[in-house]
Amino acid sequence: MKIDFIGNLIETALGEDIGPGDITTDHLVNQNQQGRGEILAKEPLIIAGIDVARQVFKRLDSDIEFIADCNDGDEITAGQVVITISGRLNALLTGERTALNFLQRMSGIATNTRSYLSLIKGKNVRLVDTRKTTPGWRILEKYAVRAGGAQNHRMGLYDGVLIKDNHIAVSGSIKEAVAKIRSKVSHLSKIEVEADSLAQVEQALDAGADVIMLDNMNPEQIKEAVKLIDGRALVEVSGNVNKKTLEILADLNVDIISAGALTHAARSMDLSMRIFPE
Amino acid sequence: MKIDFIGNLIETALGEDIGPGDITTDHLVNQNQQGRGEILAKEPLIIAGIDVARQVFKRLDSDIEFIADCNDGDEITAGQVVITISGRLNALLTGERTALNFLQRMSGIATNTRSYLSLIKGKNVRLVDTRKTTPGWRILEKYAVRAGGAQNHRMGLYDGVLIKDNHIAVSGSIKEAVAKIRSKVSHLSKIEVEADSLAQVEQALDAGADVIMLDNMNPEQIKEAVKLIDGRALVEVSGNVNKKTLEILADLNVDIISAGALTHAARSMDLSMRIFPE
Amino acid sequence: MKIDFIGNLIETALGEDIGPGDITTDHLVNQNQQGRGEILAKEPLIIAGIDVARQVFKRLDSDIEFIADCNDGDEITAGQVVITISGRLNALLTGERTALNFLQRMSGIATNTRSYLSLIKGKNVRLVDTRKTTPGWRILEKYAVRAGGAQNHRMGLYDGVLIKDNHIAVSGSIKEAVAKIRSKVSHLSKIEVEADSLAQVEQALDAGADVIMLDNMNPEQIKEAVKLIDGRALVEVSGNVNKKTLEILADLNVDIISAGALTHAARSMDLSMRIFPE
Amino acid sequence: MKIDFIGNLIETALGEDIGPGDITTDHLVNQNQQGRGEILAKEPLIIAGIDVARQVFKRLDSDIEFIADCNDGDEITAGQVVITISGRLNALLTGERTALNFLQRMSGIATNTRSYLSLIKGKNVRLVDTRKTTPGWRILEKYAVRAGGAQNHRMGLYDGVLIKDNHIAVSGSIKEAVAKIRSKVSHLSKIEVEADSLAQVEQALDAGADVIMLDNMNPEQIKEAVKLIDGRALVEVSGNVNKKTLEILADLNVDIISAGALTHAARSMDLSMRIFPE
Amino acid sequence: MKIDFIGNLIETALGEDIGPGDITTDHLVNQNQQGRGEILAKEPLIIAGIDVARQVFKRLDSDIEFIADCNDGDEITAGQVVITISGRLNALLTGERTALNFLQRMSGIATNTRSYLSLIKGKNVRLVDTRKTTPGWRILEKYAVRAGGAQNHRMGLYDGVLIKDNHIAVSGSIKEAVAKIRSKVSHLSKIEVEADSLAQVEQALDAGADVIMLDNMNPEQIKEAVKLIDGRALVEVSGNVNKKTLEILADLNVDIISAGALTHAARSMDLSMRIFPE
Amino acid sequence: MKIDFIGNLIETALGEDIGPGDITTDHLVNQNQQGRGEILAKEPLIIAGIDVARQVFKRLDSDIEFIADCNDGDEITAGQVVITISGRLNALLTGERTALNFLQRMSGIATNTRSYLSLIKGKNVRLVDTRKTTPGWRILEKYAVRAGGAQNHRMGLYDGVLIKDNHIAVSGSIKEAVAKIRSKVSHLSKIEVEADSLAQVEQALDAGADVIMLDNMNPEQIKEAVKLIDGRALVEVSGNVNKKTLEILADLNVDIISAGALTHAARSMDLSMRIFPE
Repeated sequence: MKIDFIGNLIETALGEDIGPGDITTDHLVNQNQQGRGEILAKEPLIIAGIDVARQVFKRLDSDIEFIADCNDGDEITAGQVVITISGRLNALLTGERTALNFLQRMSGIATNTRSYLSLIKGKNVRLVDTRKTTPGWRILEKYAVRAGGAQNHRMGLYDGVLIKDNHIAVSGSIKEAVAKIRSKVSHLSKIEVEADSLAQVEQALDAGADVIMLDNMNPEQIKEAVKLIDGRALVEVSGNVNKKTLEILADLNVDIISAGALTHAARSMDLSMRIFPE
Repeated sequence: MKIDFIGNLIETALGEDIGPGDITTDHLVNQNQQGRGEILAKEPLIIAGIDVARQVFKRLDSDIEFIADCNDGDEITAGQVVITISGRLNALLTGERTALNFLQRMSGIATNTRSYLSLIKGKNVRLVDTRKTTPGWRILEKYAVRAGGAQNHRMGLYDGVLIKDNHIAVSGSIKEAVAKIRSKVSHLSKIEVEADSLAQVEQALDAGADVIMLDNMNPEQIKEAVKLIDGRALVEVSGNVNKKTLEILADLNVDIISAGALTHAARSMDLSMRIFPE
Repeated sequence: MKIDFIGNLIETALGEDIGPGDITTDHLVNQNQQGRGEILAKEPLIIAGIDVARQVFKRLDSDIEFIADCNDGDEITAGQVVITISGRLNALLTGERTALNFLQRMSGIATNTRSYLSLIKGKNVRLVDTRKTTPGWRILEKYAVRAGGAQNHRMGLYDGVLIKDNHIAVSGSIKEAVAKIRSKVSHLSKIEVEADSLAQVEQALDAGADVIMLDNMNPEQIKEAVKLIDGRALVEVSGNVNKKTLEILADLNVDIISAGALTHAARSMDLSMRIFPE
Repeated sequence: MKIDFIGNLIETALGEDIGPGDITTDHLVNQNQQGRGEILAKEPLIIAGIDVARQVFKRLDSDIEFIADCNDGDEITAGQVVITISGRLNALLTGERTALNFLQRMSGIATNTRSYLSLIKGKNVRLVDTRKTTPGWRILEKYAVRAGGAQNHRMGLYDGVLIKDNHIAVSGSIKEAVAKIRSKVSHLSKIEVEADSLAQVEQALDAGADVIMLDNMNPEQIKEAVKLIDGRALVEVSGNVNKKTLEILADLNVDIISAGALTHAARSMDLSMRIFPE
Repeated sequence: MKIDFIGNLIETALGEDIGPGDITTDHLVNQNQQGRGEILAKEPLIIAGIDVARQVFKRLDSDIEFIADCNDGDEITAGQVVITISGRLNALLTGERTALNFLQRMSGIATNTRSYLSLIKGKNVRLVDTRKTTPGWRILEKYAVRAGGAQNHRMGLYDGVLIKDNHIAVSGSIKEAVAKIRSKVSHLSKIEVEADSLAQVEQALDAGADVIMLDNMNPEQIKEAVKLIDGRALVEVSGNVNKKTLEILADLNVDIISAGALTHAARSMDLSMRIFPE
Repeated sequence: MKIDFIGNLIETALGEDIGPGDITTDHLVNQNQQGRGEILAKEPLIIAGIDVARQVFKRLDSDIEFIADCNDGDEITAGQVVITISGRLNALLTGERTALNFLQRMSGIATNTRSYLSLIKGKNVRLVDTRKTTPGWRILEKYAVRAGGAQNHRMGLYDGVLIKDNHIAVSGSIKEAVAKIRSKVSHLSKIEVEADSLAQVEQALDAGADVIMLDNMNPEQIKEAVKLIDGRALVEVSGNVNKKTLEILADLNVDIISAGALTHAARSMDLSMRIFPE
């Protein structure tokens, strides 16, 4: 039972596209015919996914030569060649679309993230993603967020505690929920509590929450909450974070801003591949 | 070796989110605690992915009751409850995000597709997708395109022949490429040839191509090509198809318009889930 | 989720034979003992499966040297050595039976196919296989048919449309069936309709079928059907195709003859392996 | 890591035939349309594989009703209906070919085995198969041999010791080979030695072999060997066992006759399925 | 790609024991023969693994009735029947050893843990396990520790930060290491630093470590460290924790004691199963 | 469907420890930083598992250099370095615990086995293990028993026949059970019968059992049984075999002594790894 989400996704991607065989290329291109390919940006972007693209081609032809002229996170200009690949022509033709499909999405998230960050440059706040990611892509999308320059919230439900309203409801109170979970999870886990009101903020503080998430509060409410918390817990704001609201939120003295839009609202970047048979 | 792309993706999605356990819910919510959940649209949309959402919850609690008040492809209004789920509360809490992540993306593609279709209503042209899909999601995204009302191009490289410039280059000529592949693929496969110029269109006709793809041609060129082809092959136009160009292309008497934007440029729809512990 | 039917079958074959270990060889043969093996034909045959045999030994000893003195599809005489293998003796002994089991069956199909083809040499008709293959072996058996010189019908239910009587029954008429499926499948798919009578042939023509399969018709009926169709669709004959009937069918001016016997009635060829410890 | 060769083979068989979807049936037959199917023999045969056929349909429609009117190993007459299936029509249509492909091969082996057995009826000798089976099918083919009435040799290299000439060559002598392996394998394993000459038979007896395989000996040599062994070891004859030689071998007072032809030379039986939409 | 460590381990366990079939039971016991089994303790113990035992039998016979007369974590007396199972006799016979093998090890860890806890009853310190678990068993062994009454340290390398000497060496200093990792991991992760000396404790405090692990210190050193830390970080002691040292350590005012011996030095408990054919 | 229990267990072990990433090492150690590690024994032991440890590191860094200064089964002194590893530092840090967890358990079983054997040195009896192994570890634990110098009983239920009381009960008598199973299993399988009394021993002899297991008999009973059997079957004693009883049992003229304690009562050996960044 190998745990390899990325390798599994690449195999699936190749499998769903190639199935039992690329009937055009397999029948027209000789196995030994060599070629060269260049992947280039068709618009300015922050590149991400180079190693995934490498693995796509390597799985089709382990002898392929794959040279990246940049690193994930680099700013790329329109028309710039980012990757050069040499090897069996049929591997280039068969892998082209899958490699581009990975790059266009990952670069889209990195580029989107970078543009969010540019709005809060120099401000002392941590911009993080959420769990609103494409199913099957969690690790790659969170990686692309880091390539864009922001940071990650928890990876999933297994590596971070976030107590929401329904958890509170079945536990009786915030105090009881925090106490119960503190006794059960590892001493390395901080406990975050979602608060919808100042009353809940106060209860979370009483309960000893390490982090308090202010959910869908307006700037006024956030200001009051921050004042109330007064450094006794980390403060995260969440909900309706977009390019219009980000700057305002970043000036409210909060520690963390989480934005689902980093991943779910990113547009695919335009990249293409030119192939030259030898 | 089971071939089940959708089941595999759902398992991966649950695995990447839950890992060895939802440490918040597992420790706070009793195994037997029951609850009810409602998934609702936060904006007008075309719904898609209902059965995938069902499977997400069924895999967490096989006894769950999952009732959809609509079918994939239906038009949903803002605020409308589309799915009601009853069963173990921890399954609802643990599965919520994964189910929504599937629905928001699939509905996004269906909604986007429907809006494209609305622009060419009543016109005698087939709007199809491309292979520019999210890796791992090919089958689901092509399904969402159909839910939106459009049609699919080939699923992948294995079930349709499309001869591109590089295939032609290594084959010598369009004629040789078509002849070679005709002799090798099943008699059930039509052969499509990509043409960048009228000269190539002519060669493709000579070679007996069943379908000719006019790649990145402008309306004038397309008109000429259609005239030249004159019903001897199906005509597909591809490249730069967006909401601005679609209507114009649809009036050029072509048979098929393919648009990568149906899948790769779709925005996630906003859906949420309300959970009520019993 | 890797899609690799051949690799999967080889692993299964090794697994079912070796299980947790070859208790004779593992205990008697030293890991470093080297040897050489020769695979030879015990009767005249068309060889097929060389690369599969290579993979069998490579998976047991990646350093093994595997030299084929011929290519799939070659005519081999009795006694001829076709493959020479050098490497770890225990890999030779443990892999021998599995490699031979692949070769004997694949060569059987290639040889059988070649003998069918010899009966219709020079005639302008395409001989194809069917879906009557050994479960798990579809890709290998269809490959062996091509090695034998014939061509493939569709690989499976996913890459070709064939409308049979029951499909017609539930659709109302051939016309409705063809229209419905034309609107749903990709524009790259031809549509084949099975016809048991001249009346059905006529309906299929009316419906615009691309290919008409004449099922279990006698030569007289076939002649009439071909005359009726008159080039408006491709004509396939199917049913009771064997070495006795093949020539007659090939003279009836049909386009395609499909024969399940190519795969399901092939006899295993006799090959053996001589091993020489160093 | 589940060990389920049969389930794995059925999934592979369905996967290679259906791939991402049966494009004819899926588009023409309504999900809820019901039907009935009858599987019948087109020639006299010994049936085998009923449960495998059941699993094929159950995996496509878990609610299907599958009624077998006979048991594996039963003698079936031409025209006899052996299985009746009721349920979703699309499951019947999609599963038909795969189920028949299993039945035709397994029944072929059972029928072939039964005809071998009929030649040695009442004789005190054990007829067994070999490892010359279709890769991936070991367990099913050995099962079909038992359904035909014969017995199995070892399943594979892991559950029985058979010392061949090359094992002897690298061990120095039969004596050393037997001693070495006796010290290493479980006390529950008998040790079989292949002998090509009377000299080797004598050496095997000296070495304390539990079973001696007389390989490719003629009847005269076998008689002498049996006399020499005189009950001190079990005697197996192997090589060139076919319907012509079987009776003679069975009268030579040997304990076991092994015949690769039981599996590798079996002809597929002719079965078909009639489907009735409701 | 399903993430199911426990299900995978159960399948592997059944696979490695049963392989292609239980040749004793399959040949002697009729498929329909029913029976009853009782699993009983042969010595006093804390039971753990009931649900795993249930799954073992359920996978062999989904209709089996499995009744546990106790819960994981319960104290069981010698001779007490803990589980009663009714169903197909062959499932009972084939599953017996695997089910007992799970129970004997898991109960061993739970019993061992409970005996450790009994030594520090009423003391305000958290006893936790380590990563010294049996490969493949991490989740089950950590579960058994909880069933015994103690708590878990991090599950693995992915859900908790522990900076050791080598991490410090390559980072330059504790301060740099903590700062670097704080900037990269989620805001929900506490940061633990291993300290071998008071000097390192001081550096860890300066660096803002959330938890400090005193590694292999003697009681005097620990006392000084605790005094120095003075509540500014949680204190974990680790190394040479056994039944002799546990009480002393528990009186040193530390927060957490981690003991690899909970898992790696646990003795298997003696349980057996009585089976009654009906 | 690859059958690779050891590779599967190693992957699972790495997966359960590393999950989606070693968040300490990945963030602090540069991908290119090199290092060296030494695995040493902290107490005298018989080493086992060297190749498993190699595979652990190779899977994390295929370029790693892994040098073992000894072989499985060697006697190691306290403080002795047994393995030296050079390569990427992060592979060393991330793989350390998993490699040690394999070595500590396998060496524990080898060491335990060797100490049992030392008690019966020079005596003509075969000491074997049982099926009381850690689920998932059958092959590795049986291997460690051989590394310790003892021998294996059957690997599982598939490669050896052992008729127990319940098998007898449902078969009518020992005679019927032996006859039935003899007719069904391969002629290479010996048949072992469990006997609880002299009466059963006599019945097993009558039935022609090849091996008789004397279950939980005391020395007097065993003596009588051995006398009664008088070389007509192999004699195995089982039950309550420990270091106190072993010598006595070994002097009773039995052929085989089976001891579950070899595997289930072995204590983990203490090994550790020193890592030196370059």
